[in-house]
Amino acid sequence: MSTPHKVAIITSGGDSPGMNGAIRAIVRTAIYHGLEVIGFKYGYQGILDANYVEMNARSVSGILQRGGTILGTSRCKAFLQESGRKQAAANLDELGIDVLFVIGGNGSMRGAHELLKVWDGQVIGLPGTIDNDCGGTDFTIGYFTALDTALESIDKIRDTAEAFDRVFLVEVMGRKAGDIALGVGITGGAEEMLLPERPCDLDQVVERMVLSKERGKGSYIIVVAEGAYDGGAPRLAEELEKRTGYACRPVVLGHIQRGGSPVAMDRWFATRMGAFAVKAALQGANGVMVGIEKNELVTNPLEKTWQENKSFDPFIFEIQPMLSI
Amino acid sequence: MSTPHKVAIITSGGDSPGMNGAIRAIVRTAIYHGLEVIGFKYGYQGILDANYVEMNARSVSGILQRGGTILGTSRCKAFLQESGRKQAAANLDELGIDVLFVIGGNGSMRGAHELLKVWDGQVIGLPGTIDNDCGGTDFTIGYFTALDTALESIDKIRDTAEAFDRVFLVEVMGRKAGDIALGVGITGGAEEMLLPERPCDLDQVVERMVLSKERGKGSYIIVVAEGAYDGGAPRLAEELEKRTGYACRPVVLGHIQRGGSPVAMDRWFATRMGAFAVKAALQGANGVMVGIEKNELVTNPLEKTWQENKSFDPFIFEIQPMLSI
Amino acid sequence: MSTPHKVAIITSGGDSPGMNGAIRAIVRTAIYHGLEVIGFKYGYQGILDANYVEMNARSVSGILQRGGTILGTSRCKAFLQESGRKQAAANLDELGIDVLFVIGGNGSMRGAHELLKVWDGQVIGLPGTIDNDCGGTDFTIGYFTALDTALESIDKIRDTAEAFDRVFLVEVMGRKAGDIALGVGITGGAEEMLLPERPCDLDQVVERMVLSKERGKGSYIIVVAEGAYDGGAPRLAEELEKRTGYACRPVVLGHIQRGGSPVAMDRWFATRMGAFAVKAALQGANGVMVGIEKNELVTNPLEKTWQENKSFDPFIFEIQPMLSI
Amino acid sequence: MSTPHKVAIITSGGDSPGMNGAIRAIVRTAIYHGLEVIGFKYGYQGILDANYVEMNARSVSGILQRGGTILGTSRCKAFLQESGRKQAAANLDELGIDVLFVIGGNGSMRGAHELLKVWDGQVIGLPGTIDNDCGGTDFTIGYFTALDTALESIDKIRDTAEAFDRVFLVEVMGRKAGDIALGVGITGGAEEMLLPERPCDLDQVVERMVLSKERGKGSYIIVVAEGAYDGGAPRLAEELEKRTGYACRPVVLGHIQRGGSPVAMDRWFATRMGAFAVKAALQGANGVMVGIEKNELVTNPLEKTWQENKSFDPFIFEIQPMLSI
Repeated sequence: MSTPHKVAIITSGGDSPGMNGAIRAIVRTAIYHGLEVIGFKYGYQGILDANYVEMNARSVSGILQRGGTILGTSRCKAFLQESGRKQAAANLDELGIDVLFVIGGNGSMRGAHELLKVWDGQVIGLPGTIDNDCGGTDFTIGYFTALDTALESIDKIRDTAEAFDRVFLVEVMGRKAGDIALGVGITGGAEEMLLPERPCDLDQVVERMVLSKERGKGSYIIVVAEGAYDGGAPRLAEELEKRTGYACRPVVLGHIQRGGSPVAMDRWFATRMGAFAVKAALQGANGVMVGIEKNELVTNPLEKTWQENKSFDPFIFEIQPMLSI
Repeated sequence: MSTPHKVAIITSGGDSPGMNGAIRAIVRTAIYHGLEVIGFKYGYQGILDANYVEMNARSVSGILQRGGTILGTSRCKAFLQESGRKQAAANLDELGIDVLFVIGGNGSMRGAHELLKVWDGQVIGLPGTIDNDCGGTDFTIGYFTALDTALESIDKIRDTAEAFDRVFLVEVMGRKAGDIALGVGITGGAEEMLLPERPCDLDQVVERMVLSKERGKGSYIIVVAEGAYDGGAPRLAEELEKRTGYACRPVVLGHIQRGGSPVAMDRWFATRMGAFAVKAALQGANGVMVGIEKNELVTNPLEKTWQENKSFDPFIFEIQPMLSI
Repeated sequence: MSTPHKVAIITSGGDSPGMNGAIRAIVRTAIYHGLEVIGFKYGYQGILDANYVEMNARSVSGILQRGGTILGTSRCKAFLQESGRKQAAANLDELGIDVLFVIGGNGSMRGAHELLKVWDGQVIGLPGTIDNDCGGTDFTIGYFTALDTALESIDKIRDTAEAFDRVFLVEVMGRKAGDIALGVGITGGAEEMLLPERPCDLDQVVERMVLSKERGKGSYIIVVAEGAYDGGAPRLAEELEKRTGYACRPVVLGHIQRGGSPVAMDRWFATRMGAFAVKAALQGANGVMVGIEKNELVTNPLEKTWQENKSFDPFIFEIQPMLSI
Repeated sequence: MSTPHKVAIITSGGDSPGMNGAIRAIVRTAIYHGLEVIGFKYGYQGILDANYVEMNARSVSGILQRGGTILGTSRCKAFLQESGRKQAAANLDELGIDVLFVIGGNGSMRGAHELLKVWDGQVIGLPGTIDNDCGGTDFTIGYFTALDTALESIDKIRDTAEAFDRVFLVEVMGRKAGDIALGVGITGGAEEMLLPERPCDLDQVVERMVLSKERGKGSYIIVVAEGAYDGGAPRLAEELEKRTGYACRPVVLGHIQRGGSPVAMDRWFATRMGAFAVKAALQGANGVMVGIEKNELVTNPLEKTWQENKSFDPFIFEIQPMLSI
């Protein structure tokens, strides 16, 4: 293996706060080590289109505190085909790229894995997604900001819920992963949390709602992960209203959870992971994603990002009913 | 007219940030002037139920910075009947109430107006609603916080809109009044704003969207007031997607706009209006709402709150197309 | 008078949140009207150095939500000399500038006024300063954000003040103007406010502190404007600690009050004033500052900005002692 | 060992955001397990004064999102004497307390340790301090919020630093621990960080400042931990101004770092640690502090909290100079 000379960066899939911090860390540490750096625009699509910008230390000034991604992102269909990936490989070779850094979720890591079957450069992944649904790392870049954004919304909704003694259903992101729902459910003091990972027993939910009203507790907040109930919070609100007779208001937080200036923890992990990814690249790592496990920076094979099933600490489910009495 | 001895407060209709500041100002200035104060719980419903708490200076400690209302609120149907209002009048007399302070929107002011037909105490209104849709005052308590909350959400959505070069439709509160939509449209740099007060010409909207894309501007944000399009942002997104072929994402901000710690301006007006309401009561005012007009504290007849049609400065519509080029 | 063809913008003096919104509005409305636009860097210094950038609609993309000023600012000493201003006039002529827009405080407006004695172009001012100490307008761009920033800090300090039953002195900006101190004092529920405009009677402050402690109220917050006490909050804390025996902690908020993403009201006024300034320029206005008076956009002679003495509504001082009982 | 029947809680030392979440979790899980709960006011002082409140599930409603501590806190001198601790032990016995939960920093844990020498109940500690300077846990309750508060301030100061091309020195809390300084230095993109744990070589600092100016980078932010330089940021600013000739502005963040609504991570750890502390108590644990190590809830002997020297990951110091180029 020879030393890399030129590297490229993409951000791919749903944007997440902290992606810019990762870009900044990669660019600056790469430049420090004498590498050339380019950034493709709009994820894998940019590789296919050879749509890129050259990057230097100044290109990433003032971006650490910005949400979104200065490189843009997309969900690229052409790259799902082998023909697309071969085109990408050809373009990377044409541009003399030795290392490709891919910042995204586990879908993007799969893409990176497939690319390596047709390209002989190095690929290093970084976990950038608000959903925290990526194996090979305890935390993904963007998760902490999304958590605080959703939490602020729940704190606000609580004001109205208490003023009216009313039931609110708050839908948060997470099609397959309940990390945001669990996080804001506990930290927002929600009376109930519905997660994709746990079957939802509506009878029990109804029973607890009635019990709570009888005890005289007025407001009641149910956090619903996107993927936990078919039709989401709006449909569940209708159902619960029918069954309990209480007015139930749904709120779908939606895309506000993606944006915003990243909180400290996301900048912290983004910066450390970005620098660590460059270090790994210089040491010849390939086909791996950088992550954080038990407070340590690590690399793991790309496959682990979609194969590993992380599970929640069961203690949290043990205590949740005690907390909302 | 004799000097009042005992006063009561209600918060009524949708809660708004700053209501607590108004309660605090009324309670403390009233107590300073030697008045007894009680607070009915859950708006007019609390008068009907004689559900109240006695209030002193400490009852309102630490509430200035809190969203919602410590007195609770409701939309009371029984009070829409004359029989309900007579019951309320009887309860107020029974409790020896000389003045009733009503903090709420123009619906609550109508209720206050009707109450005075069957009760011979004094009623003083204060404009508490996020919608800013109340005649007799330039600003309502809660409007500024709602504006900043919606604006923060739009800033976040902009991050994703730019990362993806995508169209977003953001629905904000305002069934009949476009104040929030106009405010956040201009301050959020939205490309388009749809208000209940202005007919929505979809053909023009589509034309401008296409023109903007052709000019190479990727992200496009359309702020939609609740009452501006039948079916709201979700339906409009479908329609625009069909007509333009661009992916259009709806986001309904919903109840997060009501809550949250009030910003300085809402605390400022709440405090001044609360104290001014007590002053007006001591001077014998009746059937009026306190307001702020051209920076001056004023009182206006309750009728003005639903009869006056405030209009927007036309200059803002003149410049809006120039700002989003 | 001929129609202008080319205009220039500077931001001058202390930066304030919303300056970027004013720049954006000027640039876009000017371009809409077919004008050429340049921006000098670092205020008057940039005119002296002929240090400028050409601006188009894209130059101001994504800046509406940013604090600070993309043009930079400075306090330029050379411009205080007539020779400096003559050099500036020569440079403006050299570049073919017809109109200069100056965004800044009343010191910058004085500079603009002096410039007009040696230059025969048009000068239009816009009030950009957090201190709100500018005649000819009810509000300056940046004041609202500074208020909310200081208020958030006071809310945080209140948490600790209450946990410890302690006295805190919070120093806010305002050498000659107490607008921030008054605003956050009232909206933060401070027990005491010391303003440059009102003589500070320490004996009375001490008396009220003692009375409050005796009444059992633990925490006590005194808001001190920069210019209200010689040596500021740190020195006053020492003095009050000596006199009362209570532990008194000073906090100097300092430069955090200047920055941050502008709140809605600052973007609102910045945008409207910016567009109005261009309109005024096209109509031949000269030697005036744009402002907002009683909710109306106005222009006033530059002199008014430092000659007019705005005063506070006396009602606020009447009620303040009632509010903190 | 017999099963506990009655438990008590104190918060001690500097308040930190999340203490209320820990109180809530202890109260509710304890009540769920049939225990009686009281809360002493103002830390150890409250035990000495037998100043307490009885607590039930409703006592802790609506406190999860509040900064400070509803129980109050203090730095109690009498408890530093054995006589004081014996009095405390007598009062605890008098009230029939079986378990005392102490939420505070390592000073409070030392106090707890000393108390156990004269009292034969159970004592369980929880790490509540913004400084993160507590052995036996990777994170303390309050650290994350303090980090985000300081970071927001630095983001704001950056706006002005860039507008003026100026040097700012920002002093953050941390007499002996540089955790906040390091955290916000990296995540705020500071050019320099001075920590108590690392000797400060002023010559090198000056050299880097000069080099940076020469490279044309205008703004320069130096984060200074409280204990890193004698006289703090104000004195260091004078010194650097003298040596470099650049205007250097100090900002001391001070007590605003302690307050504020806790961010998700602090509520998360507070809630889990609180519930875990009750579980540990029920299992007979004594003389230990609850903590989080490598993502796992643990208990460690109280001594570890002041004896363990945690160290920073050296990689962060390796990359810091690369990041600020």
